[in-house]
Amino acid sequence: MKLVRYGPQGREKPGLLDAAGHIRDLSALYDTIGGQELSTAGLQRLAAIDPASLPLVKDNPRLGVPITGISKIVGIGLNYRDHASETGAEIPSEPVIFMKSTTSINGPFDDILLPPDSQHTDWEVEIGLVIGTEARRVSEATALSHLAGYVTFHDVSERHYQKERGGTWDKGKGCDTFAPIGPYLVTTDEISDPQNLSLWCEVNGVRRQNSSTAQMIFSCAYVVSYVSQFMTLLPGDIICTGTPAGVGLGMNPPQYLQPGDTVRLCVEGLGEQCQKVRRAVA
Amino acid sequence: MKLVRYGPQGREKPGLLDAAGHIRDLSALYDTIGGQELSTAGLQRLAAIDPASLPLVKDNPRLGVPITGISKIVGIGLNYRDHASETGAEIPSEPVIFMKSTTSINGPFDDILLPPDSQHTDWEVEIGLVIGTEARRVSEATALSHLAGYVTFHDVSERHYQKERGGTWDKGKGCDTFAPIGPYLVTTDEISDPQNLSLWCEVNGVRRQNSSTAQMIFSCAYVVSYVSQFMTLLPGDIICTGTPAGVGLGMNPPQYLQPGDTVRLCVEGLGEQCQKVRRAVA
Repeated sequence: MKLVRYGPQGREKPGLLDAAGHIRDLSALYDTIGGQELSTAGLQRLAAIDPASLPLVKDNPRLGVPITGISKIVGIGLNYRDHASETGAEIPSEPVIFMKSTTSINGPFDDILLPPDSQHTDWEVEIGLVIGTEARRVSEATALSHLAGYVTFHDVSERHYQKERGGTWDKGKGCDTFAPIGPYLVTTDEISDPQNLSLWCEVNGVRRQNSSTAQMIFSCAYVVSYVSQFMTLLPGDIICTGTPAGVGLGMNPPQYLQPGDTVRLCVEGLGEQCQKVRRAVA
Repeated sequence: MKLVRYGPQGREKPGLLDAAGHIRDLSALYDTIGGQELSTAGLQRLAAIDPASLPLVKDNPRLGVPITGISKIVGIGLNYRDHASETGAEIPSEPVIFMKSTTSINGPFDDILLPPDSQHTDWEVEIGLVIGTEARRVSEATALSHLAGYVTFHDVSERHYQKERGGTWDKGKGCDTFAPIGPYLVTTDEISDPQNLSLWCEVNGVRRQNSSTAQMIFSCAYVVSYVSQFMTLLPGDIICTGTPAGVGLGMNPPQYLQPGDTVRLCVEGLGEQCQKVRRAVA
């Protein structure tokens, strides 16, 4: 199943994609796609609906963040060997955890806003893991059974805030609009192997990142289990799992997002995002 | 005004304290005390209620977290000169930011659960700032006008997770039960100077921390303004502002919380917390 939320910002309706990729309207049956709907039972109820029985949505509406009720976003840093190397960091011996504020959540086609004084905002394509059932100290073997599905996730990062302003990475990870999510949530049954998906990112049409989740140091199952040792993961929570090489920080000289730039990114099977970059009003 | 939520865990009702310090029941008028109620207009409506007109609550019920709708908790690290020094850290040149997961939120008299393998869980009394109106890139001069009030905040911290497990502090800050909040929210009108409040913490009856918010490096107004440059603060969000010297990490040798310990802590005017320490079930 591919679940979406569509319509104007703040007034999105829930929907799902039919076999032809068209949006079918769920709003007569559901107020939203949130934590409850992402549980095993909730997804079974959704899967029992015949998409053809739902109204077809026309006119290509805006797609928003595909779920609501995201109570936290946990990020994994330096989780691709080539990316750790390009940023000059050592290969971590265990996952690096940071957090992105929920106020950074953004639609997959909405603008990225550069903070007024930001000169070092960077791109990072990632696979995002969406929790379906509560996970507290779960094993690696059972970890993936706690997922509702996967999303394309853009972990936009302000490098100067992240690395040069003291303290933890969170300063550079949680700015408004820095977490585009979607275009849809793909349920786990549609992804046979999350460790074998290509992912790429283009800036102004130039491919900058081009890799595969096969290159992750710590697998999706491992990071879900790992994070759940430190904090309970709730339905709707998202783990963004790290980015491969090819970010602006790794270029020589480094190159960052500028007003007017366009970023396109995609994880295989999880859909493509596209954002325009603008400067936030001070 | 002092706002509370009282009753069994998960079934708390809203209330306020009358002049004699007794709880008055707000549940006929309010479902909860959340973001909406913390706005300027919301607090004015609450302040217009004559406490004597509300039912008196008897039998000393449990007090829970005084507000709901906390979408994020932003922590400020090393914000007391003597604490930075005792931990061997340099005085920061600008505020250190980290985040505590919202799953760490805990009642002010509920047990602290040590993670199964934790040997380094530490105490930290702090003044917590509760946002009342959205704050995005606000000035220091206007920052305090965005607050609904203040709370006693226990920033429980697992030092080994925080400092020795790679990556950011968030790993040691966000474990379940690591953010006791309350007993009540005190509205800003009752605190004439947030930079002149004593605060203390006792472990098993021995006073370990004993200081004043006058010792903060970055003031409450400064940290609200500062954090709001990096992320939008929403009504109900909390900033915990750092702890003074006297934590277990600073002792020689370091001393940490053990099952059976009792922690009491207080910020002047904001009320006292008391937690028993237990080991979480694996």
